[in-house]
Amino acid sequence: MSFHPPLRTLMGPGPSDVNPRILSALARPTIGHLDPEFIRLMDETKTLLQYAFQTGNELTLPLSAPGSAGMEAAFVNLIEPGDTVIVCQNGVFGGRMKENVERVGATAVMVIDDWGAAVDIEKVQHAITEYPHATAIAFVHAETSTGVQSDARALCKLAADDGMLSIVDTVTGLAGIEVDVDGWGADAVYSGTQKCLSCVPGLSPLTFSTRAQTRISNRKTPVQSWFLDMNLVMGYWGKGTQRAYHHTAPVNALYAMHEALLILKEEGLHNSWARHQSNHLALKAGLEALGLSLVVKEQDRLPQLNAVSVPPGIDEAAVRKQLLNQYSLEIGAGLGQLAGKVWRIGLMGYASRPSNVRLCVHALEAALINQNLTLDRGAAISAVNKCYEDMQ
Amino acid sequence: MSFHPPLRTLMGPGPSDVNPRILSALARPTIGHLDPEFIRLMDETKTLLQYAFQTGNELTLPLSAPGSAGMEAAFVNLIEPGDTVIVCQNGVFGGRMKENVERVGATAVMVIDDWGAAVDIEKVQHAITEYPHATAIAFVHAETSTGVQSDARALCKLAADDGMLSIVDTVTGLAGIEVDVDGWGADAVYSGTQKCLSCVPGLSPLTFSTRAQTRISNRKTPVQSWFLDMNLVMGYWGKGTQRAYHHTAPVNALYAMHEALLILKEEGLHNSWARHQSNHLALKAGLEALGLSLVVKEQDRLPQLNAVSVPPGIDEAAVRKQLLNQYSLEIGAGLGQLAGKVWRIGLMGYASRPSNVRLCVHALEAALINQNLTLDRGAAISAVNKCYEDMQ
Repeated sequence: MSFHPPLRTLMGPGPSDVNPRILSALARPTIGHLDPEFIRLMDETKTLLQYAFQTGNELTLPLSAPGSAGMEAAFVNLIEPGDTVIVCQNGVFGGRMKENVERVGATAVMVIDDWGAAVDIEKVQHAITEYPHATAIAFVHAETSTGVQSDARALCKLAADDGMLSIVDTVTGLAGIEVDVDGWGADAVYSGTQKCLSCVPGLSPLTFSTRAQTRISNRKTPVQSWFLDMNLVMGYWGKGTQRAYHHTAPVNALYAMHEALLILKEEGLHNSWARHQSNHLALKAGLEALGLSLVVKEQDRLPQLNAVSVPPGIDEAAVRKQLLNQYSLEIGAGLGQLAGKVWRIGLMGYASRPSNVRLCVHALEAALINQNLTLDRGAAISAVNKCYEDMQ
Repeated sequence: MSFHPPLRTLMGPGPSDVNPRILSALARPTIGHLDPEFIRLMDETKTLLQYAFQTGNELTLPLSAPGSAGMEAAFVNLIEPGDTVIVCQNGVFGGRMKENVERVGATAVMVIDDWGAAVDIEKVQHAITEYPHATAIAFVHAETSTGVQSDARALCKLAADDGMLSIVDTVTGLAGIEVDVDGWGADAVYSGTQKCLSCVPGLSPLTFSTRAQTRISNRKTPVQSWFLDMNLVMGYWGKGTQRAYHHTAPVNALYAMHEALLILKEEGLHNSWARHQSNHLALKAGLEALGLSLVVKEQDRLPQLNAVSVPPGIDEAAVRKQLLNQYSLEIGAGLGQLAGKVWRIGLMGYASRPSNVRLCVHALEAALINQNLTLDRGAAISAVNKCYEDMQ
């Protein structure tokens, strides 16, 4: 029987609610991946991606696979066997970077911070002093497992000042908070479609600086992945109408991504960031009125991903289940070290809107009361409303 | 501006015409990749894929990336550095297999056949005698670059008899001609969605035998790709409701693939193969009446992909351009050695239907007459119609 999904409100760590305009673009008739009209779409998509990343990088494209493949593409192209890479870990995805470095046959020097804390710049400086010949510094700009943002500008500058490449994971960052690839001087930056771009999951936008591109061209060893080899991918995504066939592009997914980027451009980057911030503040006001607290300290919080401590005595899975069953509302569980200890409430892209904040606060209030927490009914929604009024 | 693709008829080497039912499934509302309803969809998809591949293999799943990543998954999981692999090449994709073997750090022993010929079983036997300790035999069941099918049953048997694994590329084969994974005793078989499944491009269905699965579990070295590591992918696609997060599944693409597999099941595998064969025969009758000939000899032809020799004096690109501009009809150019020498006319999945055969024959007739070829107007369509009548 055909699959008819329930209509959810997606406020987990991604995928986020997809704008109906994007679903409509997704379903347009498929054309060939070498069709002149498709080549035109590719050119426009590249320009829109350069806008989203704030970069003039020629090597800017959507990879035909999810964000984890974007991460792998950064490492397998820039790192060679025997290299040393300084990897900052303050959550799940720094750990995945370590895996990637090691599978390339390189050594990962780990800079570890607590889950829920930002990457400590001083520790990274120390690692640079200890490993001055490291090839790259890799870090997660927006940690999806904890809701933390780290100082990408400072970390990329450290790398550049010491002649190292910077590899930046901003899967959850792009379009939700400032991503300034050229301003940072970042060398490899990758993201995902299913977070603050509010597109369907499956692609990974990425960009490489000219410095990174030179390194890829001058490698001593071949890139270990044929599918992710940027020397080959560029033959298809490069300039001009003579595109060399590499693999069949996910045509319809690219229709969707083009539409998502267009929506972002129409709103404007700064407006998108401001919207994420204001809905975050309203949610925070509601959560606090429910007696809940955020895991991350204020200056390091991602507005688009709110890690909330589960109060003692509360069955966190039962709360999520009630939200899903009674409100068709998805929020996320904790991941890794934080499993069972936090909820992750996403306000990403199209999902970052006042009606979602209100729904979530109402639903959480009901679920917490159901768990025998004593709460002042209605206080949370009043706090949310007051916050929105104050911001006007 | 939003992208509105032209409505094409896709009779190239893929993507093929997508059934509107599939586009409609694709655009259904996105849900979470760990949603209980999505887990149910995954279970159904796996069962449907087992039907399509004719296998009971537990490790049967759609990879979240195109067919080229499916190929890479087969090699990086089954082959280790230092291994020897017998690779059969009779077109573009055998050459890509060689690339994959070498990037794993293994040695590819090549068995070369002419482009347009099937893999020569005797040559493979000879290679086995010369390299009795080879780990695997890899070959392309359905060569998209030439329109040739090779004897997968015989090749897999050779591998099994000599204790080698078989790696089978059937990107263009699945649902168009017999694919009998368990009957063949094949060990790793991968396909694509955008050929005879008539789904949007972007995923790669694949299946591993228990023998292959055991080899993956017992590897001496880690799989070089984190994204394609089947030990990890299985944690998400495995049994039960406790799915371990690996990467975010391309939710909407999976809606589409589920629908495509459902359509295949409704028609039935044997009916689908028979339909591909009868439309192929009708196209062939029309092409011959136009004085055109097929590159591949009769017993080795893929009914779903017809490589047609470009007659002397004909500007092949101008013909394709006229078809695209006047009929919004896409046929494929030659690839690699056959570039400029052939057209590739696909009759894949939903595109394999009598109205498409008739459109293509009319359009080709007009384009050839436009190139000053002397033709008996109407003879080709009569030949097509007669062929369909004779088959009734």
